[in-house]
Amino acid sequence: MLHLVLDLLGTFAFALNGALTATRVARLDIVGVLTLAMVTALGGGVLRDVLAGALPPATFSDWRYLAVAVAGGMVTFLLWRHLERYRTLITVFDAAGLSLFAVTGATTALEYHIGAPQAVLLGVVTGVGGGTLRDVLVLRLPTVLYADLYAIPALLGAGITVACERGGVYGVPAALGAAVACFTLRMIGDHYRLNAPGPHRADGTTGSDDSPSDAAP
Amino acid sequence: MLHLVLDLLGTFAFALNGALTATRVARLDIVGVLTLAMVTALGGGVLRDVLAGALPPATFSDWRYLAVAVAGGMVTFLLWRHLERYRTLITVFDAAGLSLFAVTGATTALEYHIGAPQAVLLGVVTGVGGGTLRDVLVLRLPTVLYADLYAIPALLGAGITVACERGGVYGVPAALGAAVACFTLRMIGDHYRLNAPGPHRADGTTGSDDSPSDAAP
Amino acid sequence: MLHLVLDLLGTFAFALNGALTATRVARLDIVGVLTLAMVTALGGGVLRDVLAGALPPATFSDWRYLAVAVAGGMVTFLLWRHLERYRTLITVFDAAGLSLFAVTGATTALEYHIGAPQAVLLGVVTGVGGGTLRDVLVLRLPTVLYADLYAIPALLGAGITVACERGGVYGVPAALGAAVACFTLRMIGDHYRLNAPGPHRADGTTGSDDSPSDAAP
Repeated sequence: MLHLVLDLLGTFAFALNGALTATRVARLDIVGVLTLAMVTALGGGVLRDVLAGALPPATFSDWRYLAVAVAGGMVTFLLWRHLERYRTLITVFDAAGLSLFAVTGATTALEYHIGAPQAVLLGVVTGVGGGTLRDVLVLRLPTVLYADLYAIPALLGAGITVACERGGVYGVPAALGAAVACFTLRMIGDHYRLNAPGPHRADGTTGSDDSPSDAAP
Repeated sequence: MLHLVLDLLGTFAFALNGALTATRVARLDIVGVLTLAMVTALGGGVLRDVLAGALPPATFSDWRYLAVAVAGGMVTFLLWRHLERYRTLITVFDAAGLSLFAVTGATTALEYHIGAPQAVLLGVVTGVGGGTLRDVLVLRLPTVLYADLYAIPALLGAGITVACERGGVYGVPAALGAAVACFTLRMIGDHYRLNAPGPHRADGTTGSDDSPSDAAP
Repeated sequence: MLHLVLDLLGTFAFALNGALTATRVARLDIVGVLTLAMVTALGGGVLRDVLAGALPPATFSDWRYLAVAVAGGMVTFLLWRHLERYRTLITVFDAAGLSLFAVTGATTALEYHIGAPQAVLLGVVTGVGGGTLRDVLVLRLPTVLYADLYAIPALLGAGITVACERGGVYGVPAALGAAVACFTLRMIGDHYRLNAPGPHRADGTTGSDDSPSDAAP
């Protein structure tokens, strides 16, 4: 139940984010907006379930995920001019989706008897996979590859989740703690424009203007 | 049997379409032409089977699909200069593939006990998935996201199929009716250059010159 | 055991190759480098396992693949300026990965009772799939579609493997022979800049400067 509620909240947050991305790609129509909402919201979970061998994917076989994703897409299609004003809100939603999916992705992997290191990776994939598919579909370099602290907060959230689960202390407090840790690190990274170290970078604080939440015109 | 024949016809139509796309991307060689033929022809069915949990994918485990896709690719590689003249024919083939796959995709989903809304979506994914993978591989914005009525006819065909199946009246006439409805709407949309409504559009009839069937030089 | 050793060697070779590609895309950070290392090294095997219905994917459920891929990525991240000097070495590593994966991909497919033609195709997919996903993620036209002899050596290696397996003479010598045949043809193609025939090409020897091993600045 906890798992389902967290998952549906993350799905809605990512559907808003994906649909807003679609409204920024000038040529897209309502099909494009709804497609990007669904891909962003369900893509990470589908990748996770394929990699965990949990088919058909839960995010697909359970109609509630689909309904929530379509609802997020429709809300954005109707209200996107208003939502654009709330850039910070969108960043917060995206960070919330990332955090919730990192936690639920890691726990799903453990349920399917995937080893601990791969379960952590699956948590990250669940968190960043939908946004990566979204970026590939609209021909953008996937944010996760270069910008901001994005995969690293997901790694933190999924790592705490797997550690608690293996330590026998997983439950509502641990799940929320892991999600809050991921969310906090993501928001700090966004606020201070922190980046992960790169091979061509002299320092780690060069700002990027291409983060998904700041790409508004 | 009906299912197989419709599926193989759709596979051949999409293989021609994918291979023709490849001949338009100047640098591609015969491997590229055959790869795009196979990806376009088999990609939608593979996505459908992964999402329905029907592995290994039928379009892959049955050699006839592969043979038909490769045959379509080879025919195009040898005759593409002649095929280019028949733009309308290619549009018709593409619409036929879309219609046949929307119907067979939805029925496959129902056979695997997928719920009705997701079965409709799987029909659409089967119809548009191969073309979307094709576009991503050659770095084009996927047609389905922005141009013409493309996903909506597939939605109509898959919707009629699922409704008939649930209403207990599915059979050859219903399958052909659903495919014809999809095909007709697609051809009307192509002829009048109808587009789905978009967030930045004043009206719904702005023409697009990027549809897969009209991208010829 | 033979299978595992060959597979891990191929994984390491492809991880180096993927990470080196990442260091050439200026904006990528350490997350991008490790992601491309993992995608290039594990992507082909994951595609093969999904298409063969062998879930969860072996390259994912066995932690050793992941460890080898991450190790290859970290080595490259730390030493990439030195590795750049050894262009030929990277070409050799890439050809080795291609050869090993073509052989292990085809044998995996046969173990899962996939038919012979599809097993050959799965060998090719295992060999070229990771590099194709890598190229799509960084918005490059996939090398396999246009450049050099790349898929054709993989087809040769996978074809020999399946023929030997079906002829009842598969074993260490046959596996090594198939890999060496693929490797040799790939290196000859690279050295003489051979290309597969293309629809727009007058001859088959036009050089390409976009092969993955020669894209260094």
